[in-house]
Amino acid sequence: MFDIDRRDLTFQLFDVLDGAALSERARFSDLDRGGIEEILDMSERLARDHFLPHAADVDQNEPEFIDGRVVMDDRVGTALAAYRDAGFFGASFDAEWGGMQLPETVRGAAAFIFAIANVSTGGYPMLTAGAANLIASFGSRQQKEQFLRPMVEGRWFGTMCLSEPQAGSSLSDITTKAVAADDGSYRISGRKMWISAGDHELSDNIVHMVLAKIPGGPSGVKGISLFIVPKYRVSDDGALGARNDVTLAGLNHKMGYRGTVNTALNFGENGDCHGYLLGEPHKGLAYMFQMMNEARIGVGLGAVALGAAGYRASLAYALDRRQGRHPDGKDASAGQIPIVEHADIRRLLLAQKAATEGALSLVLFASFLVDTIKTTDDENERQESELLLDLLTPICKSWPSEFCLEANKHAIQVLGGYGYTRDYPVERYYRDNRLNPIHEGTHGIQGLDLLGRKVGQAGGAGLKLLCGRIAKTIAVARAEEDLNAIAGTLETHLQGTVATTRRLATEMQNNPRLALANATLYLDMFGHLVIAWMWLRQAIVAAGMLRRGEGDAAFLKGKLQACRYFYAHELPHAEARRAILDRVDDTTVNMQADWF
Amino acid sequence: MFDIDRRDLTFQLFDVLDGAALSERARFSDLDRGGIEEILDMSERLARDHFLPHAADVDQNEPEFIDGRVVMDDRVGTALAAYRDAGFFGASFDAEWGGMQLPETVRGAAAFIFAIANVSTGGYPMLTAGAANLIASFGSRQQKEQFLRPMVEGRWFGTMCLSEPQAGSSLSDITTKAVAADDGSYRISGRKMWISAGDHELSDNIVHMVLAKIPGGPSGVKGISLFIVPKYRVSDDGALGARNDVTLAGLNHKMGYRGTVNTALNFGENGDCHGYLLGEPHKGLAYMFQMMNEARIGVGLGAVALGAAGYRASLAYALDRRQGRHPDGKDASAGQIPIVEHADIRRLLLAQKAATEGALSLVLFASFLVDTIKTTDDENERQESELLLDLLTPICKSWPSEFCLEANKHAIQVLGGYGYTRDYPVERYYRDNRLNPIHEGTHGIQGLDLLGRKVGQAGGAGLKLLCGRIAKTIAVARAEEDLNAIAGTLETHLQGTVATTRRLATEMQNNPRLALANATLYLDMFGHLVIAWMWLRQAIVAAGMLRRGEGDAAFLKGKLQACRYFYAHELPHAEARRAILDRVDDTTVNMQADWF
Repeated sequence: MFDIDRRDLTFQLFDVLDGAALSERARFSDLDRGGIEEILDMSERLARDHFLPHAADVDQNEPEFIDGRVVMDDRVGTALAAYRDAGFFGASFDAEWGGMQLPETVRGAAAFIFAIANVSTGGYPMLTAGAANLIASFGSRQQKEQFLRPMVEGRWFGTMCLSEPQAGSSLSDITTKAVAADDGSYRISGRKMWISAGDHELSDNIVHMVLAKIPGGPSGVKGISLFIVPKYRVSDDGALGARNDVTLAGLNHKMGYRGTVNTALNFGENGDCHGYLLGEPHKGLAYMFQMMNEARIGVGLGAVALGAAGYRASLAYALDRRQGRHPDGKDASAGQIPIVEHADIRRLLLAQKAATEGALSLVLFASFLVDTIKTTDDENERQESELLLDLLTPICKSWPSEFCLEANKHAIQVLGGYGYTRDYPVERYYRDNRLNPIHEGTHGIQGLDLLGRKVGQAGGAGLKLLCGRIAKTIAVARAEEDLNAIAGTLETHLQGTVATTRRLATEMQNNPRLALANATLYLDMFGHLVIAWMWLRQAIVAAGMLRRGEGDAAFLKGKLQACRYFYAHELPHAEARRAILDRVDDTTVNMQADWF
Repeated sequence: MFDIDRRDLTFQLFDVLDGAALSERARFSDLDRGGIEEILDMSERLARDHFLPHAADVDQNEPEFIDGRVVMDDRVGTALAAYRDAGFFGASFDAEWGGMQLPETVRGAAAFIFAIANVSTGGYPMLTAGAANLIASFGSRQQKEQFLRPMVEGRWFGTMCLSEPQAGSSLSDITTKAVAADDGSYRISGRKMWISAGDHELSDNIVHMVLAKIPGGPSGVKGISLFIVPKYRVSDDGALGARNDVTLAGLNHKMGYRGTVNTALNFGENGDCHGYLLGEPHKGLAYMFQMMNEARIGVGLGAVALGAAGYRASLAYALDRRQGRHPDGKDASAGQIPIVEHADIRRLLLAQKAATEGALSLVLFASFLVDTIKTTDDENERQESELLLDLLTPICKSWPSEFCLEANKHAIQVLGGYGYTRDYPVERYYRDNRLNPIHEGTHGIQGLDLLGRKVGQAGGAGLKLLCGRIAKTIAVARAEEDLNAIAGTLETHLQGTVATTRRLATEMQNNPRLALANATLYLDMFGHLVIAWMWLRQAIVAAGMLRRGEGDAAFLKGKLQACRYFYAHELPHAEARRAILDRVDDTTVNMQADWF
């Protein structure tokens, strides 16, 4: 079962976003619409032929730790070799370093396809790209030659080593140390936890990006530096040397994402772990944060892909499976109807469609902002795109993680008992997706980031800009007869959100602990507003195409109906959250530990 | 980790419900409060010593189908033998048949404890009790001697065989046949699907309760009869005979509840499957429905137990784990705080407390109604209890299944990355609980049952009665200063629910398909109303005890705070659903299959 809805990807990339305009940018001038479609065709072929076939098997037979080695299904390696041969490890990297120099928007659409087929195997290149991005942004010329090039070529993989057993979300409390050595490198010592792709034999080397503290530096997050720590040491000319002192302490056994090996790593157990400072000392967290936007959009994208995979699988089942009759047609001698005819099954499918296609719209929009920032010559456009991207990043990460997980719950429900078995993939999607509200900053932390930092940043400039963009969409929608009422609903929500934000900003002056107590509710409410905006953008395009007789009418009517569904069924829950925020509810703050 | 909150069970049984009054009923006259507490003590010991130790292992190493036999962890059998020796298989059955004749309320509280320890192993006695109940209610004297007695004694286990591969939720479409034989028995033939405990070697015999159609009978559900079909035939004096023609076709591999073996069974593959009619022909579904109340309350109870297990596990973690600092105290040199101090962690814990203790209150209330129906001499009280129980059954089944699953999601979040690993039990609870909205009538079917049948039954008498009971609670709460505002909120919701129900009843005359289209939203909204009522009942008791200086003050303050949380954070979502229902939203009905 592999069902990529290319109609929707095409609609999102070329009708809602102006994907074709990307080729007007010098960086992407080799790439026209046909070229983008070829990339997606190739992704679909590779994903179907190499990623899909072992997806269920690596879930059932996860990597094992045998005699100090990580042993896993051979097909993971085969798939990643095919992926490497097609050049995908270097998808968005500069041609100078061996990359394909694709727009982030196109790379994202391709990653979406791979994640639908097999999110676990897709984890290795995602992490490698994240690590390589750090080196590309902050590394010296020599570091790039030594480490970036083989990563872009897919010969070496990468990891992100942030968390420690005693410091998960609280990075200021990491204790991994980096002591300067005479040769200009550092000796790293400490334990890292939750390291995905932390050890394996899929690549010739593994390049760990490690947060550590140089003794004598500032305390807390201001004393964190970032180091390149390879599994095998690398000579100046790039040749592989001896094993570095990085030890696999054990594997973590998760409920999902099982194919992506997850490890505990010990650095410098024998006092001989060589690390190389990236950029300047004590700026490690700042570097990380600069990259965090893309990583968090990546998590959102993975969550959407799992949601979409479940949606399409449950839709196929609902169209095929016959069961029961309408409430007003109980004649048992009449045949059973396909379950897609039942209103409640349609609700479960519409909820999935609304969540996954709404969220896909958002992550592609955010990727488009990344491309704009990278390539525009218009300084104002660049600044605005940065402001918007900063503000939207916690939404890109959190909304799909929460609501596409909910979509996966619905997918199981559509299949009933079958959906609960491992004979169908939907239970696996649900287990995989449960990770996404946890890693790359928990759901709660995204809320604190949005309310405690992002909405007030630069005097609230990002929020003002977002409101202006949404208001523009509302004005356009007002002109479409069918969308006028929906546009009015969005306007009400927009005004409500602004008022709520003001109310909380005032409270922040008096009592920050109380003001932030319901930050997660703020995050979810804000997310609903943004997704409602994404749906109105899609509906305007769909209504226009229908009026002009363009495109697939049934598909476009589905877009309008999913938009109506989101406004009718989902958006009211944002209002419920806003009411709690507006009265600055103190229930959680006033709760006492010993009352539980 | 085994943490039964006995404070809460005691509060629910003896302070909120009048559990001690049960001993005034002739049937339970041997049992005083001390006796009930002994039963719970014994349950806790057995659960800790025999059910808990293998709970994680049977999840990881589920039963296997080897050479035609079901092979599983030996400790399941050992645990069930200890359970049998303590008499628990016969917990609520008549002493005449070897039972302990416990009140359903007490049996339920004990089952709650066993399910917290190990819901999978607890599945076998639950199914046995369900099957035995059918025989106790509808069997002949001889059938009781032959089948009921060994089941009550725990020597033979039972199953419920309803679903078929082509007919899950739609029982009118089952095709299993029962043809009368010369000896007065029947020859059964057909395939049954999703049969929990369908084959194993835990008991000397397995007694299947099988729905089948006698050829020539009415079509649809009116032609369904109920049969006793043993794995081994039984002579008139109860001795075990030859293997009956019931074949294990295969095992289903689920995402959770893995320790309860789930099977596909073939009846009469060789034309020689003996079955014995229970009660009269063509009344099978009616019999099933009479038993359904208790089975559905049982599902609700299991869902609550999983929710409670996750709540207590995540609470223990949150009290112990130190991580981060308050938003207004970022000094990195100060120590990290226990995560229970973070407002968002408290929110995740309060949400779990509100869901699980609210739902426990409901299922115990329902069990109390069962006891009242069984034992009261007051005909009016009996009739009222039946009306209430009928109306509340879909809520007892559905609300915990949906919202205690949500609680399990929160439990994982509290533990973060650790919660996502199999080193902690919370991910297992989440996987186990995902079954509950599916079996014993899906969530959607509960909605159709409530809105399409129950609220209109007997001219709406059940609903009127419920409204009267809730109004009484509101009146009492009005007198408590602290609860006055909350009482007002509940009154608003009550009136709103009644108005919505009227609106939908009118629509039912015009367009039943549209009126029922959002039945699931009605179910969830109605469930929130009922749980809000359950919380107000608890809050009244807690406020009174605090005023009088009785009980554990911290615990009682926690009750009041959880009540506030439910009203402040959860109930507004019921309002959001009511708004959709009030305008008889047609989004799902108007969606077309080819628009997806």
